[in-house]
Amino acid sequence: MMTAEQSEQIIRTGPGTLMGDYFRRYWIPALHDWELPEPDCPPVRVQLLGEKMVAFRDTEGRIGLIEEFCAHRGVSLWFGRNEECGLRCPYHGWKYDVNGNCTELPSEPEETGMRSRIKLKAYPTIEAGGVIWTYMGPPELQPEPPGLEWVNVAPERRYVTKRLQESNYLQAIEGGIDSSHVSFLHGSSLKRDPLFTGSRGNIYNEHDKMPIFDVAEFEGGLLIGARRNADEGRYYWRITPFIYPWHTIIPPRAGHPLGCHVWVPIDDENCWAWSINYHPRRALTEKETGAMKGGAGIHVKYVPGTFIPLANKTNDYLMDRAGQKAGVTFSGIEGIAMQDASLQESMGAVQDRTKEHLCSTDNGIIMMRRGLLKAAKAAREGKPVPGITAASQRVRSCSIELPYAVHYTEGAKHGLFAPPDTDPVTV
Amino acid sequence: MMTAEQSEQIIRTGPGTLMGDYFRRYWIPALHDWELPEPDCPPVRVQLLGEKMVAFRDTEGRIGLIEEFCAHRGVSLWFGRNEECGLRCPYHGWKYDVNGNCTELPSEPEETGMRSRIKLKAYPTIEAGGVIWTYMGPPELQPEPPGLEWVNVAPERRYVTKRLQESNYLQAIEGGIDSSHVSFLHGSSLKRDPLFTGSRGNIYNEHDKMPIFDVAEFEGGLLIGARRNADEGRYYWRITPFIYPWHTIIPPRAGHPLGCHVWVPIDDENCWAWSINYHPRRALTEKETGAMKGGAGIHVKYVPGTFIPLANKTNDYLMDRAGQKAGVTFSGIEGIAMQDASLQESMGAVQDRTKEHLCSTDNGIIMMRRGLLKAAKAAREGKPVPGITAASQRVRSCSIELPYAVHYTEGAKHGLFAPPDTDPVTV
Amino acid sequence: MMTAEQSEQIIRTGPGTLMGDYFRRYWIPALHDWELPEPDCPPVRVQLLGEKMVAFRDTEGRIGLIEEFCAHRGVSLWFGRNEECGLRCPYHGWKYDVNGNCTELPSEPEETGMRSRIKLKAYPTIEAGGVIWTYMGPPELQPEPPGLEWVNVAPERRYVTKRLQESNYLQAIEGGIDSSHVSFLHGSSLKRDPLFTGSRGNIYNEHDKMPIFDVAEFEGGLLIGARRNADEGRYYWRITPFIYPWHTIIPPRAGHPLGCHVWVPIDDENCWAWSINYHPRRALTEKETGAMKGGAGIHVKYVPGTFIPLANKTNDYLMDRAGQKAGVTFSGIEGIAMQDASLQESMGAVQDRTKEHLCSTDNGIIMMRRGLLKAAKAAREGKPVPGITAASQRVRSCSIELPYAVHYTEGAKHGLFAPPDTDPVTV
Repeated sequence: MMTAEQSEQIIRTGPGTLMGDYFRRYWIPALHDWELPEPDCPPVRVQLLGEKMVAFRDTEGRIGLIEEFCAHRGVSLWFGRNEECGLRCPYHGWKYDVNGNCTELPSEPEETGMRSRIKLKAYPTIEAGGVIWTYMGPPELQPEPPGLEWVNVAPERRYVTKRLQESNYLQAIEGGIDSSHVSFLHGSSLKRDPLFTGSRGNIYNEHDKMPIFDVAEFEGGLLIGARRNADEGRYYWRITPFIYPWHTIIPPRAGHPLGCHVWVPIDDENCWAWSINYHPRRALTEKETGAMKGGAGIHVKYVPGTFIPLANKTNDYLMDRAGQKAGVTFSGIEGIAMQDASLQESMGAVQDRTKEHLCSTDNGIIMMRRGLLKAAKAAREGKPVPGITAASQRVRSCSIELPYAVHYTEGAKHGLFAPPDTDPVTV
Repeated sequence: MMTAEQSEQIIRTGPGTLMGDYFRRYWIPALHDWELPEPDCPPVRVQLLGEKMVAFRDTEGRIGLIEEFCAHRGVSLWFGRNEECGLRCPYHGWKYDVNGNCTELPSEPEETGMRSRIKLKAYPTIEAGGVIWTYMGPPELQPEPPGLEWVNVAPERRYVTKRLQESNYLQAIEGGIDSSHVSFLHGSSLKRDPLFTGSRGNIYNEHDKMPIFDVAEFEGGLLIGARRNADEGRYYWRITPFIYPWHTIIPPRAGHPLGCHVWVPIDDENCWAWSINYHPRRALTEKETGAMKGGAGIHVKYVPGTFIPLANKTNDYLMDRAGQKAGVTFSGIEGIAMQDASLQESMGAVQDRTKEHLCSTDNGIIMMRRGLLKAAKAAREGKPVPGITAASQRVRSCSIELPYAVHYTEGAKHGLFAPPDTDPVTV
Repeated sequence: MMTAEQSEQIIRTGPGTLMGDYFRRYWIPALHDWELPEPDCPPVRVQLLGEKMVAFRDTEGRIGLIEEFCAHRGVSLWFGRNEECGLRCPYHGWKYDVNGNCTELPSEPEETGMRSRIKLKAYPTIEAGGVIWTYMGPPELQPEPPGLEWVNVAPERRYVTKRLQESNYLQAIEGGIDSSHVSFLHGSSLKRDPLFTGSRGNIYNEHDKMPIFDVAEFEGGLLIGARRNADEGRYYWRITPFIYPWHTIIPPRAGHPLGCHVWVPIDDENCWAWSINYHPRRALTEKETGAMKGGAGIHVKYVPGTFIPLANKTNDYLMDRAGQKAGVTFSGIEGIAMQDASLQESMGAVQDRTKEHLCSTDNGIIMMRRGLLKAAKAAREGKPVPGITAASQRVRSCSIELPYAVHYTEGAKHGLFAPPDTDPVTV
């Protein structure tokens, strides 16, 4: 349970807020690289942390991510002409380069010096892992590029989607680190989804519905260990890394690819659920990417031409009561991703945390909230923040059976901090 | 005319408000019994007096009406699994019985005692008259079940519907006790609607458009007598009972069934218009129920799968200007129910009563408002409230011709307070 | 750039506001005359300056423009019956004449005198130029009918439309007097649109994209001269009259009809863009009116049955990126009118003027804003306001080539203040 003040503090992410300033210290996934497929392609609207921007790729292939509205009279540059190394406002032809500098201001003689004083807010970007990332913080504090494993594997080993989630980011992250709901909400789907079947862990998940949560810190964040009973003197451990400030990695099953999420605030009532599958050692198979494209695993089907899930609030997520009754799904909603999203959105755009009742399986959530607030306060005080270096992000999820006496922080170390190009450690 | 303060007082119905606390002293129609057709059927969202709830029928057929959101992390239990005598949250499997008790809390060992401390707000329900009723007030003040005649007749003598009205409840009740608009708004439809035709009263209605309103009190509420000139030394009386806090009964016409309404706040900008036809002495005929199902009389056609009228604000209520011009309808809107609803919604979600100009035909409205506020204040002071006993609700509407010298409270007594299984007294 | 206070002052137009009181001093175009085609036709909802009204034409052909809501209980008179010289509320039959007087109040005996005390706000109207105009100001200050040339030419010389613009009126006016954007936004369309082609001016427009703005006052408002280089020692002048408080006239091209706008606030987030073509000397040709009906020039295609443009915010104005890339249009939006409207709406319902950067081509805008505020303050102090007499409105736009040494206020005088029935002075 949180007080109204605590809740307010952790959910707001606009400029100048505690969390907003903190999140601006990291590289933020802004859009797919294929949303800007070629030089001088159409600009794209982007909103992050409450700020409205427009992204474009200029004639030289450079990416710009600048304020959406022209400095002159406030026209949206989404209507702009992307040509000759700049985005030109269609109203009076003012033109901006990828750095937000005004390179042409045809309404005013150059001699007045006005042009050189006009500048739109612009954020640096990098392309990595199929994603265009941006950095919206103080320039002098810009970190090195993301060291996350999925970002750095060869493209054929990775599959990346994003979907709109109509809720605050926090209830989305909380779902991402919450192994305990898997036994319930996803129980039926685990048996059918081609990206989850065939793991002995699924049986342990089904038989032990009250995992013990054992949270440990590592350089980049938290290791959220969920311990269930396995066979003969052994525990089944599922270890979900939470990398500051919003990355989560699902513990793997059998030989399936790993699944990652990034939960990024659009504004305080909506977030992007970036959903990534990757295999650290091999290319994804056609069968795997086919399933992903079809909305299996952590991916979804979309309203055509949008990033809005086809099953959404306006259609009660295509609730199938017969399927729920028959146990085809546990909640009546099809698909792992929308099973989570439907429930998280049902809490309201912002969950009322003054009324919740947390229990021991919420230990990871409690630690993550505390960690986020602590890190944000550290940032405000000029102290170092966790998960900011590439090295600190080099962690994988892991699922493993260990003898009672061996703690996962020891027994699973080789799986969590594995060298590149190796198979996941998984059950 | 009311002051802004008076208006505010009478229209707000959330928890803790004057009217909200008062309404919670009565049995409230919550949903059709057929919305929960069998044990373990899908749960249904219900909102009353601003409170969001979920209704379900458990394995034993018991009905639960509990807070919508799980005590754990706030997920909507509408997504819940209704099974084995409880509604189970699909996120982590917490389970609640019809009394709101948490019967399973798989995330926590039983020894911690957490489960037994978790409880959702739950309201008692009864099934009566085809309707599931709930009581949302202090347990020690729970009244006996409704004594309304329509509730207690055999099912084949009754037909019950509900429709969403996008306005505050008060302007809906005001329409329900306002006999004077019948001569205008419904004039044309009375001549065509199979559930209203054939009454001599329709002719009096047409000829005398300025009824005298004569309001009397009875134990359960108000008798709103509307007096019109009839033939040779006689008055035509239409007597509309208003039973506290929101029941109204339309004066009957010829041998047609009686028509009743219950006007129940969903929130302060929407209400349920429960619409009931019943005949106290005989089964409804197939012709009658056929007409009702087709949207005749006080019933409507719906947007499929909803309780939203097909003719609604988004389509200007299917306004037919040619029909209005030709006098097929007076306002251009088809159907008695939507003729009322369209105008009441046109006042705005909450009518601005600081600008109204009431006149003598609004006498019933004035008395009803005063009565409601007086009763609500009495409730707050711990004094008895009217219309709370079953006996006090045993009243019928009546239409009758009486000699000039005979007041309706005497001359129509036998019709208003008639024994069961007798025909309505009607013209 | 404006302060938040200045902006607030100039954009608000409801009753009692500085601008609202000021605008109420003028005749306001309220609706097309053909929206009330005949006596006793259906009433029409009208909203102006934040006030909701209903317009009707009574049995004698007189036009009423009265408050929308019945004085009795607040029902919308849009549902009213228009019959026998009045609009009758369908609820209880109260009836109002075109002056807002209650002529029948059937709920109350005449002797009580109530009827004679009931009055709805009603505004005088006149029909002129195919438009029904209203005056919403103090009766003693009602001005003479509009003297605008387009209003007073023969009907066959004029074509009038209106469209909804989802923005505050001010950013719409600002577009209307801003000749500088023509070189950019409309550049491509000028070459194709049948109502703009064939003018030598289009070439000057294309070649000189940095016009010098030279603003002069005249009795009725401002003359906004935009000077571009023409051939051999001459300037090409485009002179846009702004007539207080919201009329603008586009400088003509070749032999095409003149184009006028009136930008009228509906509320503070929406306005009517009245769009008029007229030729002062001859009837419009069939080809011209055909093009106008098809949405060419300053007109648009509509969502059927509405005044909402077919290309609108909900469909991203039917953005055609390929056409934008190919230069078919400059912004990707088809049609002169929607090129303007899309950008003006993209600024937000109310442009944030605390962030704008005005330059020398915005001189007309700066002068117009100052002029409006000055006039509004004069009105408040009881001083004369500009553009209020018919004579002061007798001005035309003009486009002309003049030797360097001749200022347009001298050299174009004969074009700006031309006698009726003469050709426009145009290039």
